[in-house]
Order: sequence, then C-alpha cells, then structure tokens
Amino acid sequence: MTRVGVIGVGTVGRAVVQILEENKSIITARSGDEISVKSGVVRDLSKVSDLSIAVSQDPYDIVDDPEIDIVVELMGGVELPLAVVKKALQNGKAVVTANKALLAYHRYELQEIAGDIPFEFEASVAGGIPIINALRDGLSANHILSIMGIMNGTCNFMLTKMMNEGTPFAEVLAEAQALGYAEADPTFDIGGFDAAHKLLILASIAYGIDAKPEEILIEGIEGITPADIAFAKEFGYTIKLLGIAKRDDAEVELRVHAALVKEDAMIAKIDGVMNGISVVGDRVGETLYYGPGAGGNATASAVVANIIDIVRSGKRSPMLGFNHPLEEGLRLKNSEDIRSKYYLRLRVSDKPGILAKITSLFADESISIEAVIQRPSETECAHLLFATHEATERALHGLMAKLETLDAVLESPFMIRIV
Amino acid sequence: MTRVGVIGVGTVGRAVVQILEENKSIITARSGDEISVKSGVVRDLSKVSDLSIAVSQDPYDIVDDPEIDIVVELMGGVELPLAVVKKALQNGKAVVTANKALLAYHRYELQEIAGDIPFEFEASVAGGIPIINALRDGLSANHILSIMGIMNGTCNFMLTKMMNEGTPFAEVLAEAQALGYAEADPTFDIGGFDAAHKLLILASIAYGIDAKPEEILIEGIEGITPADIAFAKEFGYTIKLLGIAKRDDAEVELRVHAALVKEDAMIAKIDGVMNGISVVGDRVGETLYYGPGAGGNATASAVVANIIDIVRSGKRSPMLGFNHPLEEGLRLKNSEDIRSKYYLRLRVSDKPGILAKITSLFADESISIEAVIQRPSETECAHLLFATHEATERALHGLMAKLETLDAVLESPFMIRIV
Repeated sequence: MTRVGVIGVGTVGRAVVQILEENKSIITARSGDEISVKSGVVRDLSKVSDLSIAVSQDPYDIVDDPEIDIVVELMGGVELPLAVVKKALQNGKAVVTANKALLAYHRYELQEIAGDIPFEFEASVAGGIPIINALRDGLSANHILSIMGIMNGTCNFMLTKMMNEGTPFAEVLAEAQALGYAEADPTFDIGGFDAAHKLLILASIAYGIDAKPEEILIEGIEGITPADIAFAKEFGYTIKLLGIAKRDDAEVELRVHAALVKEDAMIAKIDGVMNGISVVGDRVGETLYYGPGAGGNATASAVVANIIDIVRSGKRSPMLGFNHPLEEGLRLKNSEDIRSKYYLRLRVSDKPGILAKITSLFADESISIEAVIQRPSETECAHLLFATHEATERALHGLMAKLETLDAVLESPFMIRIV
Repeated sequence: MTRVGVIGVGTVGRAVVQILEENKSIITARSGDEISVKSGVVRDLSKVSDLSIAVSQDPYDIVDDPEIDIVVELMGGVELPLAVVKKALQNGKAVVTANKALLAYHRYELQEIAGDIPFEFEASVAGGIPIINALRDGLSANHILSIMGIMNGTCNFMLTKMMNEGTPFAEVLAEAQALGYAEADPTFDIGGFDAAHKLLILASIAYGIDAKPEEILIEGIEGITPADIAFAKEFGYTIKLLGIAKRDDAEVELRVHAALVKEDAMIAKIDGVMNGISVVGDRVGETLYYGPGAGGNATASAVVANIIDIVRSGKRSPMLGFNHPLEEGLRLKNSEDIRSKYYLRLRVSDKPGILAKITSLFADESISIEAVIQRPSETECAHLLFATHEATERALHGLMAKLETLDAVLESPFMIRIV
C-alpha cells in the first residue's frame, strides 16, 4: 500500500483524488501496488467536505507524516511550496508537482536536494501531454535541435478567434475571461510568462541549461491588431504564441513571443485552447505532441502517471504495460458487431426505378441514408454515392450482398467507413 | 560498460551503430554508463565492411556471447527472430526489437519468457514516435477509450497524393514504388497488414488484449477511386487508412481500414509519409503523437532510446534528464543575438518621400525587406506593413528606435517575429 498526501485540493487536487479512487483497478494493475490518498491540505476546509479523505490546513501535517510515501504539491506560488517540498525530500518522501513557477526558478536546487529520491513534474508543462516523458526518455538518443511549442491555451484560444473571426484583441480577451480561460488579471498568460516557465523546464531536459525567466526573451500577444491578422492571412501565415528553444552551436536560444507561422506547418494547425509541442531531434527528425494543456482532469492525469511511475520505482513497467488483462471480462469484439457510418459507391445502369429499388434494400437492412449523390459516369451508366447513418458491419455486409445480386448494379459495390 | 549486439545491420541497424557512436557523450550522460556495439550479424558481410564492429552471419554468435548485455533484433521475419530472441532471454540478455510481426503474433509468449528481463520494442510502432512510452507510462492513469492512428506512411503518402492532386491509385502506387516508399509487392502496406500488426501491439498496452491479425478486421486502400475522393471533398472529409482500437463496454473493437475523416480533425491534418496516433483517455481527453513512422534514423532513435532505458535499468532518469549540463560549453544565447525574420507594422502620415525615408533606415541597419504592403488606415494616414529577411534582434531594435524618432511615424512600431 502506497500512501499519498495531496497539498492543495483545488480543481487539480480533487481530480487526482478522484482518479486514484475511480480508476483504482487499472492503476493497481499498472503500478503493482495499491495507492490511496491518506490526507489533503486545503485553505478552506468547507470546500472539500464531500471528499472522504482527512484534511487539514497545514502542509506540514502531510510533509511530516511518517505514513505518507508520496507528497503531491499543488499549492501554487513559489516560496511556500519550495520550503514544503524541500522538507518533504529531506524527510525522504517522493514528490510530484504541477508547479511550473517553482521549477522555473528552483529546478536545479531541487534536483540536487532530491538526489535519488523521485521528484516528478510531468503536469508542470502542457497539462495532460506527456511531453517530459517523451523528451527525457522517448527521444533520449537525440541531440535536440529545437523545441517549438504552443504552451499556453489562453493565448491560443484568443489568437485562434482573432484569426478565424477577425475579432479584436480586447473583445476576445473579455470572451476568454467570461469562459474562465483567462484570469481577471490576464498578464501572466497573455504576457508570455506562463509559457516561459514551461519553456525553461523543457530546455533543462533538452539541454541541461539553467536559466531564469528574467534572463530570456519574453513578449506577449497584447499588441496584435486586425491589420496584423490581415497581413498574416495574405501571406499564408497564422499567428501563434510560441515558446522556442533552439540550439545554435554552443548556444541555446530561449524565447517566448508571438510568431507568424506558415499555415501548413503542423504547429499552425493547433487551434483553440489546445497545446502542441514540436521537437526536432538530430536523428528522429520532427515529432509533435498535442493535447489539452490545462484543466483539472488532464493535469491530474499527468500527476497520477507520475505517482504510478514512482510506485513502480526501480522496477520497469511490465513489457506490455501490465501482466494480466486489465479487467477480466475484456474481450475482442466480433468484427460483424462493429458499428460505423458508411460511404457506399455503386455503378448502376441508369434506368427508371433503380434508385427506388436500391434504397428499399437499405430500408430492409434498417440502414438509413444520410446523403446521396448521383453522377453520370458513362453512357447509360451512373455512379450512386451514399453516406449512411450508423449501422453494423453485419447489416452493411447484408446490404452489399443483396446489391450485388441486382442486374442493374454493374460492379461489386465499394465501401469506405466514415469515422 | 554495456555491450550491445546488433542482429541485422541493414538501414536501421547501421543507424543504431552510428547513433551509439556519434551521440556517445549525450547517451552516456543520459544512461549513466558507456554503451558500445560489440558485434553485428548480417547476411552479406561485404555490406558492412565500412563499420568498425566485428561481424558474423550467425545470430547465435551474439545471443550466446557472454560479454553481450543487450541484443538488438532487427532481422525481420517471425520464426527465426522468435527462436533467437527466446534464446537471448533464456541467456539472461535484455532484448530490443523493432519487429512488429514478431510481436503481433508472439508478444504474450515473449512477455512470459522475459519476466523481469527487459524486453523493449518502441520502434515496432510508428518508428521514431515514442507512442509506446506515452501509452504505457505517460497515460497510465487513464482508461483508454480509443486509439486511432495513421500507422502506415506508404498508404498515407498515397492517399495524400490522391486527395491533393486527384492522381489515380495505380499511378500513385507506381510513384511510391519509384520513391522507395512502397515495396515491389506492396500488399503488406496497402492491404493494411502492416498497420494491423502495429495496432495489435498498441491494443495490448491499452487493453491487455491478446488478438492475432487473423482475428481482426483488416482492409486496405486498393479500391479507392477518384469518384470516392470527389465525394469526400464535397462533404468536407479526407480519406485515411486508420488503425482503430476502441473500447465498448467489455468489448474491444480492433480494425484497420480506409476511412472518411472530417477534415478539421487533427488526425486528418497528418499528410504524406508521416504517422500520427490519437489516443483518447477517460481523464486526459485526446492527445496526439505525430512524427516519422519509418526511416533508418527515426527507427533507430527509438531503438537507442530503449537501449538507454535498459542501461539505466532499475534506476530512474535523473529529474532533469541528466545531472550535469550536457556539453560543458553549452550556454544561454544573448537575446539580442537571436536571429529571425520580422513582420513590422507602422502607422505613418501619408506624405511624399516617407516610404523612401523609412526603407533607407532598414538599409542602414542592413535589414533587407522581403515584402511591403501599404494600406490606407484613415485620412492622411497609412499602415505600412513589412516582412523582412533574417536579422538579429539587435539590428531590429536599432531600426525600431530610429523609426520611433521620425515625425511621420505616428505610433510606436509594432513587430511580430516570423518563424
């Protein structure tokens, strides 16, 4: 049994508690041990009265609890979390944090204090996307040539709106605030500081470079106007707030700023609140990681993955993730039971009544039609193109077999599934 | 010192040998040990005479060599690799393979034989993309709801051409063969079998499900015609060959087939020979992984990442990837030395000679102009929009300071970098 203490039970902390409880069987299978949350720390005790964990208001209740194995730090801020996390490490407890500001300033100090004690922080960059995992382990054979990422969902939501709808900055900001994507004081997001914290963390993993936010180029998106949007469109660009780390001989460039990006680049295709990070390695070339960069569940997904990884500690993951099928009942579905929408192409002789005949066969199999196009294909022949609503493979195969027997159907029907 | 034996020194094996040699310093920093290739096995000895490793033609020379710690299996085929890999495991050697066919048929048998001996296979699915890493570790807190991926670059190259240029199937296939993307007998790729092998591996990690290629729905792209392409375009779809694993209560759907995909889905935006895999977790939502699915270097990047991971074995990665800066000389670049292309917006009074005056300031700073647009903005005022060629931040800041002093420039100039 591994016991976890969660310091900061807000949106993310609550999701961590819930995932560990609700996904317990899969988590036990993957980690090889039972994991439970022993206690939490919150400012306002009334806000967690629905949770079945012990709560207090003092972080040291968790940090100094000899029964707690893993401390999850989700407080926010820098100085208090630093003190709390240091004490946890000194007490020999593993630490998981989502606190990017803490790491932007104190990551090397923490690495030194941690030594062999696990200290993980997947959730600190790009929420649910396992980018630290990818960069530290998946691409470990490579010199990293560059990292270029959309690391702030608020800015990307706003820029996407401005590009797609031509809405001016102030209006989009108000909308983002109304939707809860931007804070009342939005400076941290739209000024590029949030992205900069994340960039510094990634740059350490890629290059081992220790830099502080104050030492790098950070600009935001405040000045962008419809004139800029129009220019970008005219020349085939989109505008994104990017965090960029780039190697240039013995120097590493680190910068956060708005950028015109060619609209056919993969990174240009990441819209709305989503995050995406492109990494170019000297051997692998470009890889890109896309997903939700914020939100309680997505961020908690990364926190819990770190917890599982720590619990496994020392031991490797089982070759196929776990040694037994996850849930006993899980079995392969019979292919004929799979449901899809379908596209169907028929070449038919162009005679009266043929469409009625064919569509009645659809009805016989209870397959309903969403769209039909009839195109003349050659003399006295036509292509009939159908899109259906959802049906089983069994029904579809039944339909195709019946269609095949019609004299008016000149070739075997051709089908593509619609996903 | 960890000693590696490479069975199969073709395109991928050669790249593995080269990466371990050429990226030795970074690999030693990340793995904590020196790794060297002791020997290789090839069919034709003359093809590797330029490599500085010992070579033979018998896989058992490596498998039975007591000095070898890690066996890299890159032979291809199923039965011989199975025998060789089993023997390696029985001899206590860790195994890394890129062999998807071997795993599509024998992964559970191998997991049982391997037990606690490391057996890794990141390169078997989607080449250089660390998708197994992501699925097994990064998303371990989630029930996987679905996996949907473009797992075969040959098909994606062909379908992209057919969609973009309307080229018929036979012609695109001939082109893919001429470019070396498709084999003389292309059935394994275009029939969907290659993608199916990969899908089965991912499905095991997501669901712990043991299925063989013969048990799942596999269809290829052979029947797609320009009529289908036209229909897809008309309704806002693109056509992709997808591998799909989807959970439906206690059943798992596994299928490979061509599909119409809404063109605004991220997976629809993956073009050419690239691979991309979308994974939906119950907590994280959708994440997507994009990169090169084939090629010697990209595949070898994944093989070497597995080797590094095994060498670290038991021990966790250092918190920030390595404990010391990677190369001693690596330092932060001064922000003023960063080079970009720039977009510049000026609001100017619309008087004769103003464009000449302004462009002469560009010339003074040796910043050359790639594009200019002048738009009237209001009475007697105009917007001047510039795109420059590459210059340093220092030169650009110098230019902006000079522009600011001009009476005709009515507002501080506004700049966005072009990436």
